[in-house]
Amino acid sequence: MPKVAPLSGFPEWTPAGVAVEQELMRRIADVFELHGYARLDTRAVEPVSRLAGDSDAAKEIYALTRLAEPGGKAKLGLHFDLTVPFARYVEEFQSQLQFPFRRYQIQKVWRGERPQEGRFREFYQADIDVVAREALPAHLEVEVATVMARALGALPVPGLTMRVNDRRLMDAAYAVIGVDDVPAVLRSVDKLDKIGPEGVGAELSGGGLAPSQADAVLALATVEGTSGISDAVARVLEAHGLTPSEELAAAASALEAVVASVNAAVPDTAVVDLRIARGLDYYTGTVFETFVVGSEALGSICSGGRYESLVAGGGMPGVGMSIGLSRLVSHLLATGAVSMSRPVPSAVYVAVDDEETRAAADAVATALRSRGIACEVSANAAKFGKQIQAAEKRGIPFVWFTGTGEVKDIRSGEQQAADPHSWEPPADDRLPRLTVQ
Amino acid sequence: MPKVAPLSGFPEWTPAGVAVEQELMRRIADVFELHGYARLDTRAVEPVSRLAGDSDAAKEIYALTRLAEPGGKAKLGLHFDLTVPFARYVEEFQSQLQFPFRRYQIQKVWRGERPQEGRFREFYQADIDVVAREALPAHLEVEVATVMARALGALPVPGLTMRVNDRRLMDAAYAVIGVDDVPAVLRSVDKLDKIGPEGVGAELSGGGLAPSQADAVLALATVEGTSGISDAVARVLEAHGLTPSEELAAAASALEAVVASVNAAVPDTAVVDLRIARGLDYYTGTVFETFVVGSEALGSICSGGRYESLVAGGGMPGVGMSIGLSRLVSHLLATGAVSMSRPVPSAVYVAVDDEETRAAADAVATALRSRGIACEVSANAAKFGKQIQAAEKRGIPFVWFTGTGEVKDIRSGEQQAADPHSWEPPADDRLPRLTVQ
Repeated sequence: MPKVAPLSGFPEWTPAGVAVEQELMRRIADVFELHGYARLDTRAVEPVSRLAGDSDAAKEIYALTRLAEPGGKAKLGLHFDLTVPFARYVEEFQSQLQFPFRRYQIQKVWRGERPQEGRFREFYQADIDVVAREALPAHLEVEVATVMARALGALPVPGLTMRVNDRRLMDAAYAVIGVDDVPAVLRSVDKLDKIGPEGVGAELSGGGLAPSQADAVLALATVEGTSGISDAVARVLEAHGLTPSEELAAAASALEAVVASVNAAVPDTAVVDLRIARGLDYYTGTVFETFVVGSEALGSICSGGRYESLVAGGGMPGVGMSIGLSRLVSHLLATGAVSMSRPVPSAVYVAVDDEETRAAADAVATALRSRGIACEVSANAAKFGKQIQAAEKRGIPFVWFTGTGEVKDIRSGEQQAADPHSWEPPADDRLPRLTVQ
Repeated sequence: MPKVAPLSGFPEWTPAGVAVEQELMRRIADVFELHGYARLDTRAVEPVSRLAGDSDAAKEIYALTRLAEPGGKAKLGLHFDLTVPFARYVEEFQSQLQFPFRRYQIQKVWRGERPQEGRFREFYQADIDVVAREALPAHLEVEVATVMARALGALPVPGLTMRVNDRRLMDAAYAVIGVDDVPAVLRSVDKLDKIGPEGVGAELSGGGLAPSQADAVLALATVEGTSGISDAVARVLEAHGLTPSEELAAAASALEAVVASVNAAVPDTAVVDLRIARGLDYYTGTVFETFVVGSEALGSICSGGRYESLVAGGGMPGVGMSIGLSRLVSHLLATGAVSMSRPVPSAVYVAVDDEETRAAADAVATALRSRGIACEVSANAAKFGKQIQAAEKRGIPFVWFTGTGEVKDIRSGEQQAADPHSWEPPADDRLPRLTVQ
């Protein structure tokens, strides 16, 4: 047996931490369901040939082999996101689905990348997508962003900024600038945080852009706001001696409208930011990245966008976003921002007078449970002081003394006669509560 | 891209099937928490050296390799049950846990075995365990069986029989019979269903038992009931010219007492059955197998028992049981025994008059959602007939007409004026309901 030890990149929490994570999942799922999103749960594995379609992701795939067949070629791998299995599921089950199809998934994904701060090899994602059979109207882009803003708004984070860009706008702007290889330029712009404008400028020049073109690309990436985007973009281009196109103005207005609609639903959430380039090589419309106010260094905790075709054969446009749930939970737990009022479900610890009367203690517990009050019965008949201590260590607020028919709030010391068929704990003590510092 | 196809042994459900599974998980988790069991969620992987400790299980392990390192030796594998990760977790986190420690886990496990009817390669298990630092009192064996009987009782199954045996009893009885290799005999007895008494008898003789010893072993395996076990066992032995020991009588009484206590808590559930031998080579006290009345061929859907030592170094006795949740869900869905009243969360489909008034429809939806009523807004402004049809296909019972401020129950056709800030659907329509045939 190997020594027990944490595995780097495979986070696990204490029972209280698990309770925090479960509470966050519950809140997110509630919001998703309120908006009509049905839960899916897909298998954890896909054929390697399907997973490896995207060459970048292929490096990260965990392939499975049966230990009993050591030389066997790996045919299956663990999914590295929830989009690949969702796409396959929709194709496989399409005759049993109604479109537009709204679904959510909260599942683990696995990536065999080098573990580092905030990067896990096994983590939970929480995804929503809407996928259509025909054209996908812009209001569904607004809907998905709105649902995610509301879901994140139900979590104990101080505030959120959803930064929005649009591939259609970038295509139109880069066409005016004369960029040929749009994906390559977007990949460079995506490095702004890492290598700064000078580094990106050098990359762009190395990639064949003239200095004024590189300048225009960099200047465009500084445009952000919730209004006047079309004018701001026009000013950037004109300053570089270029003439904005009608297509560009239309794309800027469309993006501004999406952002305005999201803010109408969830005030002060979304902002246009033309520096957002992550995923623009895959997404074909709006792209979203979401940052926690005051913890921007954490990176985007909820990203996504609009895509033209979910399934391999073409067709089925959709829009989706994904919360990096484990990253968020890890951050909240590590900073001490949240905790649970107790790490166990029990509100009551039923003391046992002696083993001969254990049945009476069990009966008290059964009466409490029949009214939804979680409790545990002491495993031993130790002195009451010891039993109270056991409750205290578990964070259980009440101890029930079966013999005298009394219940004690061990925080205040207050003790009173009570009937297990009618006694109610204060509402705040019924269930473990998420507490926010 | 490979053609989309189901993978044998990796079950997936339609959205309605997922909703059934989620509802079952919720009911089980509620019962576990009412009894004070805290949820854990462990990583999906363990070091192969830890997983492969049990030689039988080793064949089934899915080992992980990074696709980027094809020749690399697999160090990690997917867990094949929830006990191995729980044991490792308890050892790793023990300083942060309170003992006796009660926990539950509802997670997927993976087994690379040959798929066959009712056997999956990826499936959900729902486990509870109580583990102690010192001695584990018998009432915790009763507790675990009781909690499981209540959890299963919350599910849509017609009835359950929990069959209980005890290694201590078998050891005492086999000592009287003169069996040397107890585990080997138990493994043979475990094959009674497959190869019958004659086949088992032949195995026992082949293993070196005298004909009268083999007969006694087989006769012992026919003892079952809820009372008089000690006498029944004595009669079997005496019929073979043997004298029961005091130890045997004590073990029989203890087992009968456990079964009686479970039945006191959940009537007509548990029965002593000395034919139950599965896992007796691992468990050191009571063992449990649970069958659905009328679907016994499904095999045990909830098994477990008492073990002497959870962790490698010794110590930490415990008792646990595990529900084979996917097997149960698969059975319930395949037999049409259960379904959901609708496959989507939405109770209301908010119709859109025309795209210009979509904001009004959104406002209705927001008002409904603020009171916990799930709804979706039509993705298009098609004719009302089409929109009603869209609701119908999704199984959504109500359509809201924003323009006229009316809501229609599309099952009865009844339509009435309604205010989205106060209208309530019938309680039965608020959430999707599990319906049992």
